[in-house]
Order: sequence, then C-alpha cells, then structure tokens
Amino acid sequence: MAEYTLYGFKESGNAYKAGLLLELAGCDWEARWVDFFNGETRSLEFRSEVNEMGEAPVLIHGDLKLTQSGVILEYLAQQTGQFGPANDVEHREILRWILWDNHKLTSYTATYRFLKQFMKGTDQAVLDFLEGRMIAALKVLDKHLTGRDWVATGALSIADFSICGYLFFETEFGVDWADYPAIAAWRERIKALPGWQHPYDLMPGGP
Amino acid sequence: MAEYTLYGFKESGNAYKAGLLLELAGCDWEARWVDFFNGETRSLEFRSEVNEMGEAPVLIHGDLKLTQSGVILEYLAQQTGQFGPANDVEHREILRWILWDNHKLTSYTATYRFLKQFMKGTDQAVLDFLEGRMIAALKVLDKHLTGRDWVATGALSIADFSICGYLFFETEFGVDWADYPAIAAWRERIKALPGWQHPYDLMPGGP
Repeated sequence: MAEYTLYGFKESGNAYKAGLLLELAGCDWEARWVDFFNGETRSLEFRSEVNEMGEAPVLIHGDLKLTQSGVILEYLAQQTGQFGPANDVEHREILRWILWDNHKLTSYTATYRFLKQFMKGTDQAVLDFLEGRMIAALKVLDKHLTGRDWVATGALSIADFSICGYLFFETEFGVDWADYPAIAAWRERIKALPGWQHPYDLMPGGP
Repeated sequence: MAEYTLYGFKESGNAYKAGLLLELAGCDWEARWVDFFNGETRSLEFRSEVNEMGEAPVLIHGDLKLTQSGVILEYLAQQTGQFGPANDVEHREILRWILWDNHKLTSYTATYRFLKQFMKGTDQAVLDFLEGRMIAALKVLDKHLTGRDWVATGALSIADFSICGYLFFETEFGVDWADYPAIAAWRERIKALPGWQHPYDLMPGGP
C-alpha cells in the first residue's frame, strides 16, 4: 500500500491539483478511482463514509482523511517541504490565490466545462453565463501573470497547482490561449516540469 | 484614524464576513465605502491601486493590504487571538469549510441574490441554475450543522463568519429557514452574540 491514497477520477481537475503535486514531489501515492459519473460522490454511503460534502478529492494519509483541494495542497506542502510558503507574506499571497481560484476560476470553469462536455440539454443561457464568468476570471489571471513566472511567489507554489487544475482541459471548454498569452506561457512552464502529465494520463479512469 | 480600515459596502456579504469579526472582536475599525454599484471595484483605478481581482473586501492594517475574505479572516483571528484554530486539526477543518463556502455556498448564493435582487433581465434559466446550486449547498450545511453548535470546531470560528456572510439576506433570495432547521438554529446563535448586527446596519451604505 502506498503512503498516500488520493480519491479522484481523471475528469476531475480538483483531484488533479493534488495528484500533480504528489507526482512532482516524488511522493509514494496511489489513486483510488471514484465513479463520479454514476453518482458515487453524491451517494449516501460516500457522504457518510468518505466526504459529507459529496466531492472529490479526498486524501488518506495514515489515520488522516482530508478533503477540499486547498486543504490537501497545504498539507502536502507541509509534509513534503515543497511548494509551500517561506513566510507569512507568501502564505497569505498563496492562500489568496487559492481562494480566488475556488471562488472565481475553478468554480465557473469546471462547471462550464462539465455542463458543456458531459451533460446534454443544459440551457444555452446557463452556458453563456458560466462562460462569461470564466472569461472574466481568465482575464484577471492573464493580467496578473504578465511579467511573472508563477502565480503567488517567485517559485512554483501550491497556488499554481490549484489554478492550473482545469486549464489543461481547454479543448473541452473552448479557450484559445492566444487570447491569454501570459497564461499560455505559464502553462508551458508547468508542462515543462519534470514528471508533468496531463490529467487524462496521470489520474485514474474507470475499470 | 482607526487601526483597521475595511473596504466594503452594505450589500456585500463578503465584506460583512470581515466586518462582523472586527465588530465582535472589539477591534478599532472603520469602514471605507466602495461604490460597487457604479463600478468602482471593476474600475482600472481600483484594480491597479487597491485589488487586481476587482473585489471587496480589502483590509488595510498599517502597511499591510489584504484581499480575499478568507485571508482577512485568518489574519484577524491571528491578530486578535479570537475565533481561530487551537491546533492543526482545527486549522484544517476551519480552512475546509472556508474553501467550501467560497466554492459552493457563497459563490452561488451571492451570485443568485445579486442577479435576482439587483439586476434586471437575467434569464430565468440562469436564476434557476444558481438557485439549484444554492439549495444543494444549503442541504450539505444543514445536515452538517445538525447536532452541532458551530461549523468547524466546538466554538464560534472564522468558518462561521465566512459561511454566514450572505445568510442574513434571506428575504432577497427567498429561502424559508423552516426547510433548514439546523441552519436556522445556528443563525439564531449568531444573532444572539453580543454586538451582532445585520449587514445593512453594520456596513456602510452610500453617501
């Protein structure tokens, strides 16, 4: 049995945020596939036994069970001594961008992509609304990344892991990175990291 | 000049999260009204001088300028020695619920209420979508609060401040708390705290 077990599935950018850190940090980890598309995360059993929030990822480390990608990223940075803040100022800047990601970027991007790619019959007005919110967030990010290599500090940090979670699924939500040159360059920096894999390669699919 | 200055406006539940903590902790603070409805937070000047994310709240404390309500709450808990975690386990549990609030509760509740209350002409399908997501989040919260007094620990914590931010605007998004008895009881506990005020009383309106 591996040291870390990560509940997730390859379509989940939130699970990928944690999986990518585990991989790049060289952790001994294994994935436990969650059958999201057949409702496992929303089942009574999953909610009572694994995560009352009805969501992946969930990280198991010894007796600890952690949920919410931001909590898992912070914990793994502490455990591995990698990708975390060097001081209080960096801590707050990293947390700020992780919160922004949860509230403004991943929330809309993941939902838009899910409804567009995996669900039939979503009202076009809902898709347009979500796409508009996603574009507004991408503009904030592109402007922020202009002239810097990484989101929150001078180095790759857990804020980058959080924010990149869904941004490798671009063919599924229809963004042209030429419209966001600073994001495009930052994505290439992440893809060039030793051990980087696309979520569809790194994370588990079904049986 | 007060020790703390909080940028916000009375319609903002996100600013209220920080304002309520400042008030209940007995801090020396003042509000700086932001003219959100005339676009101040989205202006180039605000984005370049105050917050590139184009959002309130913003907290000024000496030379420090902090944004994102979750960062501000954590900082104020550290500064005041109140409402923060007692150990690592409590820290993670508090952060977990603040992240969930940002991603799943406030994100949908605030947006639904904003479009329903303050914007004309939003497509009904968008309102229905946001309301459905809000209800799903309220169900998770109601189940979680059943049998407990506070969200994350045995005491009032910054997770409660975060999660309650929009839940006193219920007449504007049309929730009947009888459908969520555990949330209803928890709201009453918060309202009974010495010094509690509704956001429309605590936070600044226009000139």
